[in-house]
Amino acid sequence: MAKPLHIDARAVARTVEEARSFRPSVHCITNTVAQNFTANVLLAIGMRPSMTVALDEISGFVKSADALLINLGTMDEDRRTAIDDAIAIAQERNLPWVLDPTFVEKSEPRQNLAKQLVGRKPTALRFNPGEGQYILGAHSSEPHALTVLSRSTGSALVMTGAEDVLAVDDDLARVRNGSPLMDRVTAMGCALSAVVAGFLAAENDRQLAIVSALVLYGLAGSEAETRASGPGSFVPAFLDALYALSADDIIAGARIA
Amino acid sequence: MAKPLHIDARAVARTVEEARSFRPSVHCITNTVAQNFTANVLLAIGMRPSMTVALDEISGFVKSADALLINLGTMDEDRRTAIDDAIAIAQERNLPWVLDPTFVEKSEPRQNLAKQLVGRKPTALRFNPGEGQYILGAHSSEPHALTVLSRSTGSALVMTGAEDVLAVDDDLARVRNGSPLMDRVTAMGCALSAVVAGFLAAENDRQLAIVSALVLYGLAGSEAETRASGPGSFVPAFLDALYALSADDIIAGARIA
Amino acid sequence: MAKPLHIDARAVARTVEEARSFRPSVHCITNTVAQNFTANVLLAIGMRPSMTVALDEISGFVKSADALLINLGTMDEDRRTAIDDAIAIAQERNLPWVLDPTFVEKSEPRQNLAKQLVGRKPTALRFNPGEGQYILGAHSSEPHALTVLSRSTGSALVMTGAEDVLAVDDDLARVRNGSPLMDRVTAMGCALSAVVAGFLAAENDRQLAIVSALVLYGLAGSEAETRASGPGSFVPAFLDALYALSADDIIAGARIA
Repeated sequence: MAKPLHIDARAVARTVEEARSFRPSVHCITNTVAQNFTANVLLAIGMRPSMTVALDEISGFVKSADALLINLGTMDEDRRTAIDDAIAIAQERNLPWVLDPTFVEKSEPRQNLAKQLVGRKPTALRFNPGEGQYILGAHSSEPHALTVLSRSTGSALVMTGAEDVLAVDDDLARVRNGSPLMDRVTAMGCALSAVVAGFLAAENDRQLAIVSALVLYGLAGSEAETRASGPGSFVPAFLDALYALSADDIIAGARIA
Repeated sequence: MAKPLHIDARAVARTVEEARSFRPSVHCITNTVAQNFTANVLLAIGMRPSMTVALDEISGFVKSADALLINLGTMDEDRRTAIDDAIAIAQERNLPWVLDPTFVEKSEPRQNLAKQLVGRKPTALRFNPGEGQYILGAHSSEPHALTVLSRSTGSALVMTGAEDVLAVDDDLARVRNGSPLMDRVTAMGCALSAVVAGFLAAENDRQLAIVSALVLYGLAGSEAETRASGPGSFVPAFLDALYALSADDIIAGARIA
Repeated sequence: MAKPLHIDARAVARTVEEARSFRPSVHCITNTVAQNFTANVLLAIGMRPSMTVALDEISGFVKSADALLINLGTMDEDRRTAIDDAIAIAQERNLPWVLDPTFVEKSEPRQNLAKQLVGRKPTALRFNPGEGQYILGAHSSEPHALTVLSRSTGSALVMTGAEDVLAVDDDLARVRNGSPLMDRVTAMGCALSAVVAGFLAAENDRQLAIVSALVLYGLAGSEAETRASGPGSFVPAFLDALYALSADDIIAGARIA
């Protein structure tokens, strides 16, 4: 049975501070639309991004990383092989890795690849409801279905939207921070997946790590919304908030259920 | 004979509202310099961008799109084949498609490709005067030459600069909105081509669709200029204005001749 | 013996004005993370960026450029061949070219490529201390070692960080402008390398050209820091400052030693 998780906002604030001071290196195999923004999001938090997708270089980069992101946007043959090698190295070294099946609903080859990669048991899988349907099956957007799927796949499932839902085995958590302007900026979800990977490197407890990533990201969004006049000014304000939000801000603002 | 078109600012304001509420999906085969900004421009207006260039995925993406952009910046072999397939699908499904021959003056292979693609009768062709010379011939920057060429190619021709000129068959329209700071930000023209594609999906009348795109884009530029201290702060202010400009702002500010 | 260079802040201010009015075209073979930001940095100064990496187009683009940047981030086979051709054309035409061995410490194939390209005598080589160790040897971060290496390679060596050090043959210069927020924004170093290339096109004296690039870039950073609330708002403020800093600002703010 799905059971609600009780994660304390103070534990979240501590985890954010640990992630900032640990400064994890996150290697990101991600699409060219998201690369620059993802790097800036990680840097704003204090993490260290790298982004190469070159086949003969991927091994050196993943070996010196603390976490790995695999995002399926703008795929090509090279990237598929790079992904394969990168996952093998991450697993050999026990690095956390996150799968982000961006836009999987739009392309059959991507669905096949996504399903195959889910079978390799990512530490976490982050997606929105539309994407979830295609890799996890018809009822994946129901929280109960997520816990069933988390148990069968072994992955933490992170479905993000107006409300974020996290399922790890039988545990369910919900985070209700965020801003509607996040839908008007490209690569917000892609960059969040990289942040989740970084938090998984800094904190072993998957639930605490992922909830902390969701709270920080969502709070930065709602904070940015109060300063922004639209999706343009939202972006710099969002990065500023990722950089500046204090433990007190997090404790006061976290909306975890 | 070229004849001036009379397009009412109220019709433009209505078309902008239609484009915002229709939320067209615009698939963009565009260069890696422009991808992120183009996606954010489309999202700010309320359109839905997708950007993959992978050969075996392009068909799925174009099939679920309402319009297609083909931009020739940062070409490679894969992109050329992807372009070929994408245009075939767009034409089969009667989707509007826009050709943007970025930097065609700098590369002979690109000139050849551009000429070949012009022969496939894009719904619209957007370029600046320097680019126009290379695909359309020496005198293409004269408005009269544009109408002759529009008649012979069947494409709407959109030459943008301090003044934008639109030729559709014998009709000519001019839009005089915009800001000099737009020349100091990369990919402003590339992203405009994607916006034109989105408007062509939302409104069947090509003249009205394209003039509406040019007015919204140019007005967002002049509005952003009043708020900006330079090309850096111009970008967020420009995206905010694309998002926020009201029907009244458009009616008051449109400079159509 | 290493000897300190005396470069006058007034000469720097004049050189910045020359670079702005000359408007050099800088062709950049750079990574996809850095492309958009690099283009906006060059445009903010008044330079003209181009970015194609396509093999059959590279020759046309480099032929119409005034300077060339080779950055090794996100490499692939095509880019390696494009680099080869681009350098050959630049050397044939006596264009200045800058090598930026981004992240060379993370990948052996990149180290090999970097060493081979250093052998082709770039006009300047820009790197941070971590990267320098891998292409120049263990003690490369000592200023004296830099002058030895500059003499043996024939390249100007530009090591950037909290303090920038420039070695040209026996001459050493230091620039102490800049901001710690520059470490929290991706591609700041990559874009600086493109700026150095542009200055080398505008000014023949390598020391003066490079010191001027470093001063302008660093001053824009410290100016932006005073206006920013974090790394997000730093970026637009930085581009605004590149665009707006006056000769008087440069003379008053340059910290050259």
